[in-house]
Amino acid sequence: MELVHNPRLAPAKVDELTQFALRLADAAAEVTLAHFRTALPVDNKTEHLADYDPVTIADKGAEEVIRNMISDHYPEHSVLGEEHGMHKGASDLTWVIDPIDGTRSFVAGVPLWGTLIALNDGAQPVIGVMDQPYIGERYVGRPGGSEAITRFGTHVLKASACTKLSEAIFATTDPALFDAEGVRPAFDSLQAKTRLRRFGGDCYFYCLLASGTIDLVLDPGMQAFDIQALIPIVEEAGGVVSNWEGGPAQAGGNIIAAATPELHQEALREIAASLR
Amino acid sequence: MELVHNPRLAPAKVDELTQFALRLADAAAEVTLAHFRTALPVDNKTEHLADYDPVTIADKGAEEVIRNMISDHYPEHSVLGEEHGMHKGASDLTWVIDPIDGTRSFVAGVPLWGTLIALNDGAQPVIGVMDQPYIGERYVGRPGGSEAITRFGTHVLKASACTKLSEAIFATTDPALFDAEGVRPAFDSLQAKTRLRRFGGDCYFYCLLASGTIDLVLDPGMQAFDIQALIPIVEEAGGVVSNWEGGPAQAGGNIIAAATPELHQEALREIAASLR
Repeated sequence: MELVHNPRLAPAKVDELTQFALRLADAAAEVTLAHFRTALPVDNKTEHLADYDPVTIADKGAEEVIRNMISDHYPEHSVLGEEHGMHKGASDLTWVIDPIDGTRSFVAGVPLWGTLIALNDGAQPVIGVMDQPYIGERYVGRPGGSEAITRFGTHVLKASACTKLSEAIFATTDPALFDAEGVRPAFDSLQAKTRLRRFGGDCYFYCLLASGTIDLVLDPGMQAFDIQALIPIVEEAGGVVSNWEGGPAQAGGNIIAAATPELHQEALREIAASLR
Repeated sequence: MELVHNPRLAPAKVDELTQFALRLADAAAEVTLAHFRTALPVDNKTEHLADYDPVTIADKGAEEVIRNMISDHYPEHSVLGEEHGMHKGASDLTWVIDPIDGTRSFVAGVPLWGTLIALNDGAQPVIGVMDQPYIGERYVGRPGGSEAITRFGTHVLKASACTKLSEAIFATTDPALFDAEGVRPAFDSLQAKTRLRRFGGDCYFYCLLASGTIDLVLDPGMQAFDIQALIPIVEEAGGVVSNWEGGPAQAGGNIIAAATPELHQEALREIAASLR
């Protein structure tokens, strides 16, 4: 599951694009923070409560700011974003962005949402940034390592050494998301076999996995823009991210992230057995 | 549900004790932050996974620091704390403290735990502080109002105007806590009738209710030290806190907090109907 270093992206280019990604996060934060914990209209994508998916002014505004900065600085780059879909440029370097991952947390005032920014080299995401501007912390993954930049300093991220489900701290965004067709048994099985459960984290839980305090994250039905930024953060911290069949996670779908290859394999076996 | 101003506690005395409560929070934060997101031994209170209740060095250490400061400055005051029980002083002014409310979040690295400090005047909690030092925010309730002190400034707290379950954002610490005898129907009923659910917040959710972004919080089996600090914060922001029968919340038990009296009454009716 190690990242293959793309020969087109020399280390200096990776540095340049990582710094640019952080500037995108800075710009997005100005928009999102202006609307966090304030009364704001919520524009439901659907009328159905079961599909309740708030899309805020902040979400749309932050994506516009990010897209404008990319088209100004790297007009040849492609962009895939949650709100405005795919813009295909001349380059297959593609920014994959979710301006507010965790919109339910955002509307409830819970600071576990994040701005997700990935750079995909055409084969896979090679740079990933998760920015949580209310707390004032960001998580960055790129070839060579992952780090957290917080109010307390910058430190290298390292996933835990947990190799067993029975010892694992297990997290998922929302148990209700497993009401979707055919995924509930996977959740029930892992919930029953792990040591401790946490809910409600969205992207934040993957960053805590990279930080070593959560060992296993499971989410059904993710989009590419929900997961791509998190892949370098988790993998460069020593963790494993895949779909539930063990294949690449970058297209989204049912996703699992684990602190170690051993824990990942045990969890995949449990999932397969539960869904049989 | 308004606070009765105790004639013994003149406004100047309330100010003095509120400032002291914030100094207690500062001292506790030095202990808790030193252990947050670091590898630390977890000392289970019981051997049973079903009762999994991590008690950390930080929890015990922070309570000791708080107790020492109180006995130094106000030796006549009483103290009730999670870790070391009741110390009865000559005064019936009692500090009611939970050094780390949300120990599961703490061990998982999720910054939604808090240090809870209440001052009870012998009749009820009159000052409440919830401090979340990793994020760098604290919530303070006392006669005359509630406020949040954050990295972005200080602002007055006001609960939302939500009067209907169908429009409410509903939060609880952990759905699994409702596996206890006789409480599951209340959770299922409110979950089904509300607009949006959030899990995993412990004390943090009550502060978001005071902030106006969460409308309804339900938790079963709370202790006095889990809830007393939150009562002034919620009530002075215009919200309502009670047990599920509508009686005083300060002794703990099954607790409900609502943004408005109307929402509180509708939720109490639902709970009563569900448990019938």
